[in-house]
Amino acid sequence: MAYFDNAATTFPKPEAVYKSMDLFQRHTGGSFGRGNYGFSASMKGVVDDTRSKIADLFHCPAKEVIFEPSATISLNIIIQGIIRQGAKNIYISPFEHNAVTRTLHYYENLGQIKVTQLHVTSNLEFDLQRIRFQFEERRPDLVILSHASNVIGLIAPVDEIFREAKAYGAITVLDMAQSAGLVDCDLSKDYFDFAVFAGHKTLLGPTGISGFVMKPDFNLEPVFFGGTGFESANQDMPRSLPERFEFGTLNTVGIVGLNASIKWILEQGINAIAQKESSNRKTLIELLSSYDFISLVGNVDGKDYVGIVSCLLQGISSDTAGQLFSERNISVRTGLHCAPLAHQFLKTYPSGTIRFSVNCFTNSDDFMELQTALNDIADNL
Amino acid sequence: MAYFDNAATTFPKPEAVYKSMDLFQRHTGGSFGRGNYGFSASMKGVVDDTRSKIADLFHCPAKEVIFEPSATISLNIIIQGIIRQGAKNIYISPFEHNAVTRTLHYYENLGQIKVTQLHVTSNLEFDLQRIRFQFEERRPDLVILSHASNVIGLIAPVDEIFREAKAYGAITVLDMAQSAGLVDCDLSKDYFDFAVFAGHKTLLGPTGISGFVMKPDFNLEPVFFGGTGFESANQDMPRSLPERFEFGTLNTVGIVGLNASIKWILEQGINAIAQKESSNRKTLIELLSSYDFISLVGNVDGKDYVGIVSCLLQGISSDTAGQLFSERNISVRTGLHCAPLAHQFLKTYPSGTIRFSVNCFTNSDDFMELQTALNDIADNL
Repeated sequence: MAYFDNAATTFPKPEAVYKSMDLFQRHTGGSFGRGNYGFSASMKGVVDDTRSKIADLFHCPAKEVIFEPSATISLNIIIQGIIRQGAKNIYISPFEHNAVTRTLHYYENLGQIKVTQLHVTSNLEFDLQRIRFQFEERRPDLVILSHASNVIGLIAPVDEIFREAKAYGAITVLDMAQSAGLVDCDLSKDYFDFAVFAGHKTLLGPTGISGFVMKPDFNLEPVFFGGTGFESANQDMPRSLPERFEFGTLNTVGIVGLNASIKWILEQGINAIAQKESSNRKTLIELLSSYDFISLVGNVDGKDYVGIVSCLLQGISSDTAGQLFSERNISVRTGLHCAPLAHQFLKTYPSGTIRFSVNCFTNSDDFMELQTALNDIADNL
Repeated sequence: MAYFDNAATTFPKPEAVYKSMDLFQRHTGGSFGRGNYGFSASMKGVVDDTRSKIADLFHCPAKEVIFEPSATISLNIIIQGIIRQGAKNIYISPFEHNAVTRTLHYYENLGQIKVTQLHVTSNLEFDLQRIRFQFEERRPDLVILSHASNVIGLIAPVDEIFREAKAYGAITVLDMAQSAGLVDCDLSKDYFDFAVFAGHKTLLGPTGISGFVMKPDFNLEPVFFGGTGFESANQDMPRSLPERFEFGTLNTVGIVGLNASIKWILEQGINAIAQKESSNRKTLIELLSSYDFISLVGNVDGKDYVGIVSCLLQGISSDTAGQLFSERNISVRTGLHCAPLAHQFLKTYPSGTIRFSVNCFTNSDDFMELQTALNDIADNL
């Protein structure tokens, strides 16, 4: 099996992720913030240390790190909270995930918000001049941006766009599901209000642990309620962070795994990891381009990308293509990848694309397996 | 370290939980429902098998099993969904967790609902006659019941209460966080609409995986939105179950662990496990009762309990008591245990109690360590 579905969940993980989780489960266990004893205290140590490693990775020691079970839940908390506080004019990129667009769609249907797509040219340029015109025409209350597209890997010029958004007083939300720990980003900058990360993707951690970074003085209303092991007598969610948004038992074993993966990323250096992935992306593109029945989608010279490549197979639906690769032990993802807007923009809607995604662990064996499979598919066309 | 905080998170877990999770992470990885290849197909096998094991455990093959990251998120989905569909008169027991009461408090503050406590006598009797009077006076739209109290372990007579609730047309929600896999419960009965389970407690699984069982024809409106790897073009959440409520990447490694723990429970038999825990509870109560500076809370002869025992130490605040036990390597939990209403009912509010919780793995070494600690505390009083 050659694994080209790292954009769904990275695989494998650094060895330390497996080891630390197994050791923790066997020898520590217990719940964080739910007892006053040695176990719980050492858990608090790991949880605090993981928060601080995340703040290191994003260069934002003064921001608050909140753990959630998934990027989707993080986005629900942030987006629904901001809308309930009155945000009306919301801008998104054409590359947003259903975690963003389905949440917005609900409030749009209620007539509470107006959603506009930021202007991106057919050459995949975020057109700042036209975006400024858009903001002038309808002042943005909230701008949500997918840092790297989960369909084509395109990296958005977030600093420029959020600086512009802030000039119009907007709240900003960065979805880093496909970029955290891979695309270096200085979240200490004042134009970052919220940034969401997914533990099991580019952060190389296990499933079940994600979260977000936020400005500590941002007064966000909660949309989930529950026990916090803290201020239990108070029937409102506590005001203090991170407790206000960390309801229920934290996924402690997940945090232990994430701690190990971020430690590994910090040791390797984010740029070294990005270079490996970038080199793997190059190899992938060269390989795919060498077959004339394959056409790449959304791949423009001179733009920045993470290791996600979408393509089409001539005369073969993406469903059938998925089957062809699956039969040949190549793991890819086909269809809309939970991002229908991106496909509408790329004109690959509604059938979608075949998505290959590499990471820093993708190796020559994987590419050789893929080449064998592609040759075999070509022979049987 | 002797572990008496199983009501927060059970520890240890069956060996198969550790092994299966480690093997899965090392050799399978990948995301469920996010690809069309071997990995993903084998993941689907594990996820489906876990659903079917849960349905087995609860005797409800015709009901739908939905995975969520926590019992708290499950309760938010269910309770917020039902309230938005118009439920006004909501009954709860005096033993509900903040996951229930804080969620209700939010809507109560908005003036949308009226919350009433089911009548329980000071002798811990759910007074069915008076509960019937309550229902007659104000017809129940929704009845939420904690199956076993997380403060004193009392098991509620859920069948009688829900049968009564259904006679008045109410929707029923059972919170099995402290009882799933331990107190045998036939959820196939028609008076069970929703039942919530927590993977990391009595189900002996890892943190980060929980969920709920529901009637498949119950038309619950979603309150959280996201990608489902399914019907991606649809900007509404899909109608089909479980996808409607399983947004974002499932915690696959958590599901693998939960699969192993439920397999273990089914092999041992729920009654054998309950007997062991019950015998451990008896040992614990005998031990605690042998010290005259300890008084048990909410412990009434002839009532059914899970292995949770609350107590007070004469003249010692529960915070200080926690410290005393922690220094002696005994893990207990002190305070309100995220259930302030229970303490108001038990008259242990606001300082709370010291909670000891055993499970089937608690052994004579644990009790000996506890005895040594208690003797030492007694000597230093």
